Amino acid sequence: MTVYSFGSGPTVLPPEVKESICAGINPDGGGTPSVLEMTFTGAAYADIQAEAESRLRSLLSIPETHRVLFLQGGASAHFALVAMNLLGPRDAAGYIDSGLWARRAIAEAAHWGEIRVVGRTCSQGRLPPQESWRISPDLVYLHVTTNETAEGKQFRRLPETGAVPLVADMSGDLLSEPLDVGRFGLIYASAQKNLGVAGLTIVIVRTDLLGRANPLTPAPFDYTKQSAANSRVNTPPTAAVHIANCMLGWLLAQGGLSAMATRNQRKADRLYATIERSGFYRSPVAADDRSRVNVRFHFPDPLLDAVFFEQAEAAGLLHLKGHPNVGGVRANLYNAVPEAAVDALIVFMDRFERQWG
Amino acid sequence: MTVYSFGSGPTVLPPEVKESICAGINPDGGGTPSVLEMTFTGAAYADIQAEAESRLRSLLSIPETHRVLFLQGGASAHFALVAMNLLGPRDAAGYIDSGLWARRAIAEAAHWGEIRVVGRTCSQGRLPPQESWRISPDLVYLHVTTNETAEGKQFRRLPETGAVPLVADMSGDLLSEPLDVGRFGLIYASAQKNLGVAGLTIVIVRTDLLGRANPLTPAPFDYTKQSAANSRVNTPPTAAVHIANCMLGWLLAQGGLSAMATRNQRKADRLYATIERSGFYRSPVAADDRSRVNVRFHFPDPLLDAVFFEQAEAAGLLHLKGHPNVGGVRANLYNAVPEAAVDALIVFMDRFERQWG
Repeated sequence: MTVYSFGSGPTVLPPEVKESICAGINPDGGGTPSVLEMTFTGAAYADIQAEAESRLRSLLSIPETHRVLFLQGGASAHFALVAMNLLGPRDAAGYIDSGLWARRAIAEAAHWGEIRVVGRTCSQGRLPPQESWRISPDLVYLHVTTNETAEGKQFRRLPETGAVPLVADMSGDLLSEPLDVGRFGLIYASAQKNLGVAGLTIVIVRTDLLGRANPLTPAPFDYTKQSAANSRVNTPPTAAVHIANCMLGWLLAQGGLSAMATRNQRKADRLYATIERSGFYRSPVAADDRSRVNVRFHFPDPLLDAVFFEQAEAAGLLHLKGHPNVGGVRANLYNAVPEAAVDALIVFMDRFERQWG
Repeated sequence: MTVYSFGSGPTVLPPEVKESICAGINPDGGGTPSVLEMTFTGAAYADIQAEAESRLRSLLSIPETHRVLFLQGGASAHFALVAMNLLGPRDAAGYIDSGLWARRAIAEAAHWGEIRVVGRTCSQGRLPPQESWRISPDLVYLHVTTNETAEGKQFRRLPETGAVPLVADMSGDLLSEPLDVGRFGLIYASAQKNLGVAGLTIVIVRTDLLGRANPLTPAPFDYTKQSAANSRVNTPPTAAVHIANCMLGWLLAQGGLSAMATRNQRKADRLYATIERSGFYRSPVAADDRSRVNVRFHFPDPLLDAVFFEQAEAAGLLHLKGHPNVGGVRANLYNAVPEAAVDALIVFMDRFERQWG
């Protein structure tokens, strides 16, 4: 039986990427240091990080105005660190409260300056409508969570912020489709969704936003110092950078982000269509705000959740449980989840509906 | 030619450990999630982290009074985080200024409370003599860097601190020999020296020191919250935890820390003996303060440094360059560096001395 995982992260990796990772570790290579054993100050590691940066720049067409940092901590740590790096104690930043992860970002940032929630979710199944956002020009940045993985919502177009720098947690959807990086002041993302394994956080920052860090910022998390040191203020997570480099190479080999977007759109469309045509499954998210990477659905009777998970697991379909805060089913369709996984899920959903619908 | 690396970190891994890592990644395993692809909230990852903790507890005989945390950031980040977690804004902590890494810890901690340097290196080649330390009972902790990797110095006995909790950066020497963990309030260590790859920081903390974190501490770095959440406040560096687990299994298979201590002592003793019996090589560190994990030596003429590195590399002996701050040669002898590497280095040193001495 072929097994498919729809887990929330760390997510699956393509078989070719797992092969390159093991080829890099090369247990039969004698004493020659493998990718896991390179001193971080040496040329071998410098080459890998440079290749990863160059691939990321090429995939996302990152302009020269923006620097790429390879850091630790996870997006949850950078909720605070973004504010420490950009927000003076007397400054104000705008945040869009779009769901669970935005609220965590707000809670952590609130220690470091004034946080104004300038857009708020009014209905469970909707994102905060952009027409209602009040983006005053004195905000030092506007923060959005482009994809809310728990609720399965995603901003399908970027907000207009004028001269106010747009700052985005893109852990859910960075590299899932092409992006106009020039419109952002700062992007940050954990790697374990679309870019490899946990332990690496990518920060893409416009150079004119550097130089503002609160002096309390620990040196390894000071974006300005890390930018000057080429992400080597301290030892970077070299193994995770190697794995990201393999994953970035795979994305290029797939045809880049346009090809990934087509594939990701197709995966999501087919799953949402299955939900829509059924009178049994129900999407809790308004059509315009549905995430292309986290597809949620519910049953008429929540008692069916447990039956579904048990039968799905028996059919080789793993990790479909929704986030504990919202329940129901969630299929995470990150870059490395193959279309065949969605096919198998749809076949299973049709069968389940015939049995229980 | 067999190649040996004496790099400062990420350091070498035993071939058996590289084999277990690749076996865990298992590129031919079909869709079944490998160790790199496990959702961090699932049972499969929980088992790996629990096994790693249990192996660490067994190797170090960690008492029930102490919790083990698997965090990100590296020791350099925890220079600040230790103070954020333990030091109130009106508290004072004592620090021993033993060298480069102690001074970095002091600089980062100084933002979070009063830092008193209660012991200081008086001579380049010596550690601060413990008889001169002034450990006043109002200190909330005393911080030591047990091994200074740049200068090649190591405290060969633990200081007596009475009721003042002893806090130690043990990135250089944790797991290189048995340790009485009960004498410490808190131990922290980056994993890339003796415990696997960069991206994982181990914190071992006495439970009565929890509950004091500065409210500004980002949640993923709040030791109290991480202790309550079993290191899963956010996604842990699961791949690095898997690799550490493989390395801990290997340490147990080698006979544990007594066996490692015997082997590490033998490696260092033979190298220092080679230096001592030669009139050519010179150790810049006083005999009592010499590190067992970082062995340094100099030539009569510093111009020989470059010749030595070039010829050593040609002989398959890599990464022997001393820390840029001190120059000369440094052989890092972490757990996974085999005795054969030291044999090969000694043969080369004898030959080099005959040629240039």
